[in-house]
Amino acid sequence: MKIVDNISDIKSILKNVNSTIGFVPTMGALHNGHISLINRAREENEIVVVSIFVNPTQFLEGEDLDKYPRKDEADKKICKLCGVDYLFMPDINTMYEKDEIILKASKTKGFILEGYKRPGHFDGMLQIVLKLFNIVNPTNSYFGKKDAQQLSLINQMVKNLYLDTNIVECDIVRENDGLAMSSRNVYLTPSQREKALNISKSLKIAAKKIGAGQLDSDIIVDTINDILNSVDGIDVEYVVVVNREFNLIDTIELQNTIILIAVKIGTTRLIDNIWI
Amino acid sequence: MKIVDNISDIKSILKNVNSTIGFVPTMGALHNGHISLINRAREENEIVVVSIFVNPTQFLEGEDLDKYPRKDEADKKICKLCGVDYLFMPDINTMYEKDEIILKASKTKGFILEGYKRPGHFDGMLQIVLKLFNIVNPTNSYFGKKDAQQLSLINQMVKNLYLDTNIVECDIVRENDGLAMSSRNVYLTPSQREKALNISKSLKIAAKKIGAGQLDSDIIVDTINDILNSVDGIDVEYVVVVNREFNLIDTIELQNTIILIAVKIGTTRLIDNIWI
Repeated sequence: MKIVDNISDIKSILKNVNSTIGFVPTMGALHNGHISLINRAREENEIVVVSIFVNPTQFLEGEDLDKYPRKDEADKKICKLCGVDYLFMPDINTMYEKDEIILKASKTKGFILEGYKRPGHFDGMLQIVLKLFNIVNPTNSYFGKKDAQQLSLINQMVKNLYLDTNIVECDIVRENDGLAMSSRNVYLTPSQREKALNISKSLKIAAKKIGAGQLDSDIIVDTINDILNSVDGIDVEYVVVVNREFNLIDTIELQNTIILIAVKIGTTRLIDNIWI
Repeated sequence: MKIVDNISDIKSILKNVNSTIGFVPTMGALHNGHISLINRAREENEIVVVSIFVNPTQFLEGEDLDKYPRKDEADKKICKLCGVDYLFMPDINTMYEKDEIILKASKTKGFILEGYKRPGHFDGMLQIVLKLFNIVNPTNSYFGKKDAQQLSLINQMVKNLYLDTNIVECDIVRENDGLAMSSRNVYLTPSQREKALNISKSLKIAAKKIGAGQLDSDIIVDTINDILNSVDGIDVEYVVVVNREFNLIDTIELQNTIILIAVKIGTTRLIDNIWI
């Protein structure tokens, strides 16, 4: 595995390969969720590129940019073990200039839910993802379904800007007890972690109800809210039912629905979802 | 010459060529300025692609989108005569969806001068140019120095987003009497056109003064303003001296200065400039 920190270097290496390139962009602190993306990229491509870059433009003022977990040495080992060919770890100062051209997420999809709570977050995310796509020139790019709204916006960007990479949507990876993998899980105390299990539990119960024929979004939302609100210390931000285009829907459509949850437990914000 | 109106078609044709591609994006109404870009692209590349698309997102409300000159049949003939390989003329409905991800020009460079008079114009320009770059995948892309601020912003976009195309900056083409070629010149009455000659004349006189050692921007600006203001019917919007980064400069730097003029004659807005 080659570790590259220079943009021109990685760009010229990857420009001249005549092989399929699988790309997994990350902010590091790699967990089993990332590893499943890397493994899938490894299976499906001749060359695998992972990037680690904690992107400042997607953090809002007062957010956890400075304390975002950084585990460079462990991450390198993980990538090497997973058979990554190139690990791209650029320095922050090389990725941005002072007064750049920026991207603005679409008004409807970019400023609801996660975008409402974190206005500007998706603009910064799209900006870095577009830069990385143009640097790495990937055949296939791997993203987790956990960040469903991010994934939807990336799909939209690929379509709007006629990008060449194929976006591969990967299933959420969970701990044995059901908690969705997240770099932010390390912030949870043991008792908070216990409470957090109700998130995936509520989604599972909702899915069961849907499987039994309940397609009314309101009833499904109520079911989830009842479970979450019954736990002291879970502060529900939203529970919503959307279609794949991220429009709120009253009736659940099989194969085209995502149920999204965002909560705060203590100071830690957690999101989870299920694709129906 | 092949005329293509379908995005997927042109994209797949050009993706599979293993040749250098020279690209000239235009809004049609081709004049000698465009022809000089096409000729240069023809000399320097194996395949030449011209696009004609009057891009709505770079016109502001109340601007001349509807009456912008359209000369499709003449344009096709010109492209054919110039040895263009592919003429890309997409339909407006295929280039944009309803609620797209958009680009925002940099704050300093995007909202001064032309961007101050036409706020949002450069955002739309960058959006269409990025789309076209991603569709055509050009080795070299040809732009005129007449739209100097546009050129500067495109250079910045290529740098910020790590695009692969090489931007070729082409000299302004003028009528025999000095008037810079522009699709908007057709709006001028004969007497307005006569008045308009003072624009290039004032730039020429300024260049002469600089050649003789006058490097004080204020004096150069005064010289130009004196000439333009002495003509009844010329309404000066701005006369400025900037460096190639589009910062205003007090002292002219040889090889790094652009003197920019924008005026209105009747209802027609004209711009011109000289690179020192």
